[in-house]
Amino acid sequence: MTISLIGLDADDTLWHNETIFRATQSRFVELLAGYCDAARVEPELEAVERRNLDLYGYGAKGFTLSMLETALGLSDHKLRGEAVAEILAMGRDMMRHPVEPLPGVEEAIEALARLGRVVLITKGDLFHQEAKLAASGLGAFFAGVEIVSEKSPETYRRIFRRYDVSENEALMAGNSVRSDILPPLDIGGYAALIPYPLVWAHESADVPHGHPRFRELDSLADLPTWIETINSVGA
Amino acid sequence: MTISLIGLDADDTLWHNETIFRATQSRFVELLAGYCDAARVEPELEAVERRNLDLYGYGAKGFTLSMLETALGLSDHKLRGEAVAEILAMGRDMMRHPVEPLPGVEEAIEALARLGRVVLITKGDLFHQEAKLAASGLGAFFAGVEIVSEKSPETYRRIFRRYDVSENEALMAGNSVRSDILPPLDIGGYAALIPYPLVWAHESADVPHGHPRFRELDSLADLPTWIETINSVGA
Repeated sequence: MTISLIGLDADDTLWHNETIFRATQSRFVELLAGYCDAARVEPELEAVERRNLDLYGYGAKGFTLSMLETALGLSDHKLRGEAVAEILAMGRDMMRHPVEPLPGVEEAIEALARLGRVVLITKGDLFHQEAKLAASGLGAFFAGVEIVSEKSPETYRRIFRRYDVSENEALMAGNSVRSDILPPLDIGGYAALIPYPLVWAHESADVPHGHPRFRELDSLADLPTWIETINSVGA
Repeated sequence: MTISLIGLDADDTLWHNETIFRATQSRFVELLAGYCDAARVEPELEAVERRNLDLYGYGAKGFTLSMLETALGLSDHKLRGEAVAEILAMGRDMMRHPVEPLPGVEEAIEALARLGRVVLITKGDLFHQEAKLAASGLGAFFAGVEIVSEKSPETYRRIFRRYDVSENEALMAGNSVRSDILPPLDIGGYAALIPYPLVWAHESADVPHGHPRFRELDSLADLPTWIETINSVGA
């Protein structure tokens, strides 16, 4: 077996994302200190986000709208205009945040691009994700960019077909068990989990330890070696 | 020559969109009546939208954020919480708006799908556009869906390559001269303009009357006939 298509998740696999969301969330809790008990803010924000997921999808714009809705609710609509402006500014700051590849990522992608076609496969806001890829300076290593609304088995099947590879020639790497690991394994592909310290709660799921086409790696830098192992066993 | 790939724009080509934006804008002008001179609202909203385009891209979420920013500015930050909630609700209403194919569209796409592969090519918010396609009931006719951040000649070149057709086998149909017509013509493809009564100001450009690979049509229902003409001339 030879791996010829390597899918990579973006947020929290190639660059920080959750860290930026968490920092914004802390600013938000502080901002609402004058309106309500601080302990109520995070659970309420999470409930609003979850309720809006079907309407807004993933990304910083939807998150900003959910912060506003949460702030209105927790302040009994007494939120001042200055606070609204501050929340809009927090959203803009997230969207403008500089994109720094995580340590070792650039070298790893370079090595992966010598082993097969590397494709970015990510959820989130199309416009913002493309802007982040451009800002990261990693764009040239990718043979394709697939921004999707949901990472289901069907999504991966469609992408693998689009690049004309069979499932057992494709590998996906990312930090989310639910989105990056289980669906490609389900349809017969390989998957590498590269944990990120802060995993978004909506994304947690059981790690499929012991699965023959699965590995948990410490960093993306370990992925080329695993792919070489798969290729040599198949040879 | 045979046209084997038919690209179709979505908003205001397959279903109403600008009408919904305009209706929302009217509600917004009314809402701000207590805060400022009504005549200032639309020009200010347009200026804010234009300023935010690089950050938010196209779509209802960015439009909602721009309405909020406009309302804060025009009210000198005196916007009440109830008005903020009302603007959020306007945004949600836009996103939940029922999607009705324009008259004759369903029959036209059915006929087009017999002539070649039909691909949806649209800008806008990935999540919302996919939801609209699903709600329209037209999904089954499409061989592919390409949601893009900008409709440049390079975008079309990439899509035509992805579907493995040369430029002169590809045709794009839509309501925007700037986005749907000029870029495909530029790279050697065919293009059909199907005007929509309300064209968004950012999208206006000169119609290339007389161009040999261009037609202006009254409706999508006229497209299959034009494609048959192209195919028979080439045969």
